[in-house]
Amino acid sequence: MRMYDLILKKRNGEELTTEEINYFIENYTQGNIPDYQVSALLMAIFFQKMTERETVDLTMAIVNSGDTLDLSKIEGIKVDKHSTGGVGDTTTLVLAPMVASLGIPVAKMSGRGLGHTGGTIDKLESFEGFSVEMSEDEFISNVNMHKIAVGGQTGVLAPADKKLYALRDVTATVDNISLIASSIMSKKIAAGADAIVLDVKVGDGAFMKTPEDAQALAEEMVKIGNGVGRETRAVISDMDQPLGFAIGNALEVKEAISTLKGEGPADLLELCLTLGSNMVVLAKKAEDLNQARKMLMDTISNGSALAKFKEFIDAQGGDSSFVDFPDKLPKAKYIIPVESDRDGVVEKINAQNMGLIAMELGAGRATKESEIDLAVGIVLSKKRGDKISKGDILAYVHANDVEKAEKAKQQIIKNFVISKNYINDIPLIYNIIK
Amino acid sequence: MRMYDLILKKRNGEELTTEEINYFIENYTQGNIPDYQVSALLMAIFFQKMTERETVDLTMAIVNSGDTLDLSKIEGIKVDKHSTGGVGDTTTLVLAPMVASLGIPVAKMSGRGLGHTGGTIDKLESFEGFSVEMSEDEFISNVNMHKIAVGGQTGVLAPADKKLYALRDVTATVDNISLIASSIMSKKIAAGADAIVLDVKVGDGAFMKTPEDAQALAEEMVKIGNGVGRETRAVISDMDQPLGFAIGNALEVKEAISTLKGEGPADLLELCLTLGSNMVVLAKKAEDLNQARKMLMDTISNGSALAKFKEFIDAQGGDSSFVDFPDKLPKAKYIIPVESDRDGVVEKINAQNMGLIAMELGAGRATKESEIDLAVGIVLSKKRGDKISKGDILAYVHANDVEKAEKAKQQIIKNFVISKNYINDIPLIYNIIK
Repeated sequence: MRMYDLILKKRNGEELTTEEINYFIENYTQGNIPDYQVSALLMAIFFQKMTERETVDLTMAIVNSGDTLDLSKIEGIKVDKHSTGGVGDTTTLVLAPMVASLGIPVAKMSGRGLGHTGGTIDKLESFEGFSVEMSEDEFISNVNMHKIAVGGQTGVLAPADKKLYALRDVTATVDNISLIASSIMSKKIAAGADAIVLDVKVGDGAFMKTPEDAQALAEEMVKIGNGVGRETRAVISDMDQPLGFAIGNALEVKEAISTLKGEGPADLLELCLTLGSNMVVLAKKAEDLNQARKMLMDTISNGSALAKFKEFIDAQGGDSSFVDFPDKLPKAKYIIPVESDRDGVVEKINAQNMGLIAMELGAGRATKESEIDLAVGIVLSKKRGDKISKGDILAYVHANDVEKAEKAKQQIIKNFVISKNYINDIPLIYNIIK
Repeated sequence: MRMYDLILKKRNGEELTTEEINYFIENYTQGNIPDYQVSALLMAIFFQKMTERETVDLTMAIVNSGDTLDLSKIEGIKVDKHSTGGVGDTTTLVLAPMVASLGIPVAKMSGRGLGHTGGTIDKLESFEGFSVEMSEDEFISNVNMHKIAVGGQTGVLAPADKKLYALRDVTATVDNISLIASSIMSKKIAAGADAIVLDVKVGDGAFMKTPEDAQALAEEMVKIGNGVGRETRAVISDMDQPLGFAIGNALEVKEAISTLKGEGPADLLELCLTLGSNMVVLAKKAEDLNQARKMLMDTISNGSALAKFKEFIDAQGGDSSFVDFPDKLPKAKYIIPVESDRDGVVEKINAQNMGLIAMELGAGRATKESEIDLAVGIVLSKKRGDKISKGDILAYVHANDVEKAEKAKQQIIKNFVISKNYINDIPLIYNIIK
């Protein structure tokens, strides 16, 4: 088999066989195929697309390029939740204890990652003493005992994806549905879950900018998951403004605690209930979504989700008293209100720029080596559709540096679009694909 | 300017500016842009095509990536002839002295090249003592004195083309008309001719397999040439069977001498007259093609073309007595007739395979390091449309190795397609584009 022939075949619009896709991924991972042939193939795929069969094969080839986690020693149906990424997205911290408190195992391998704010592990390190350092056996026994554990990524999952993504990023071959879907799904499948609930974000703060693109990606990923025997559903949700109010690590933890207490932002709770009820049904703990939603709402009202969260923080060495006294969490030196300079209605809050402003304050990593400041970030006071009078507070900047705070304040004002007559008609949930 | 943006722009079907194309070629030649970005761009060009303006810009960017020859010290209009490559193509050896004998300067820079047989220089080295070693000044004074000289390539012409072609060759991005046309034309333009006559071959022994593809390539190249001020014409000619009878170095020289004596194959002479009359008109030595053709026919009948050939061989140190006594040319040890095993009419002689058989005999170079055997090759006795009786000689194998000769014989029989009722309706000349 020669890589040249695979490029030619795809270029001419033919379907690659399973063997050809395996040959490509295996040899690229091992360094036997040069980048310049792979980028030519990727561009040919961009134009000629991949069939569903090819996409499933590509996904499994990427899965098989590295280690896969074996979660079979964990009792029950393991349901993983994955978000395609947005700004101020605190769902994992709320959803995981809600679902776990219903007896559904949440075995989460997480990363630190690059982005506007840190990853789930960074956020959880707001609790003094919290650690993800544990052996695979400890991780599994933690999940069996508490139904919830968050571990640092062990092993090399889907190394081909890392290599492919880096190449796509510099050759304008990122935005192809099959390539995006196989990239995401290969990592989820390698991580060992039995079933998967995807949160596909749409809007300016998301990777998918239009509902149509988000729908196409969601359908493709659901097909892949179901095609390889991992039952998969996708929720398409709004990321045209940040989710909830908080953007920043400890700030988002605080918001998660409020939400678990029943005092959080309505949009964050609603998204958690939507994603969660699909997880509960996939875990076969409820007959239908209505029943699942009621069960999840009960975990908030009866305090079991909050208790589960504390149990989880304790189990991984964290100081769970922070949950009862959130002021113990990392705090910024300066909290600076951002006032509106006009009357009107909030028509738009540019989610992507809000993320970048938080990152500038120190909440996120630009490179792997960057240090994260857990305390800093933004807390919004107003959201889309809210009426504003001049002088009303739009948001608070949390900063450890006065100059950066001032700069952030100016930028936040610019990124609130305030108009005279606006009626908010963008839904939180666009669609659910299964 | 970033290469990424150029890839994205072309991928999205937009036109690249002159500055962008110059940036790409300049920086790729200098090694500042990696192959993997260039192969992605080439694949995007394959799908989105290039406009005429882009193709002209690409050609000139490639020309400017290296040296260009200055032929201004040569008197008269320099008309270059270029063939897209075929099997048994002896036109240069016949055409150059015919045209030169009419006072038109033929300043030919040639290579040795890879292929079924050697390049023009290899063939000319069949004359004992012939050499292309000379300074630029000697070359120019040779042309001014004798109206004809063949030199080895000096300087680095179109280095970007070499780099691009090597990459296209392994990434399935060769067959795009703009890329092929700019590759050929950049080298011709860098070589300094005032006007260009292209021989675009079509058929199984050629790069272009169909008349439609050949027509498209010819039109594109003519547009480029005229677009940069080098008057250009293209002749589309048949390469579905070898041209003439001889395939091999000394064998082709012998055939060229016969043709200059008026005793050569009709198809070879006819193609030389067609290409030549266009050269004569572009050199402004005749009013129209009919007059030019008559002048060229006279150079054969009055012996001036043959005399010019001898003068040229002498001038470059070769033994021109070989022209009068062609048996002095390198000869193979074994000449083995290939007999037909049936009656019928020759429907097809697979040109590409005939070339490969000659190469196996030692007539061509598979790699730069290969030694060429000037004596070996094939001389056809029958061509398409000829009637055959069982036992008739189809061809002679000229070999220096009995085993290779026997193998060649078997393969030659296989590559003659003989049918019961065939009427030859493939023209020698398909079209002339100007």
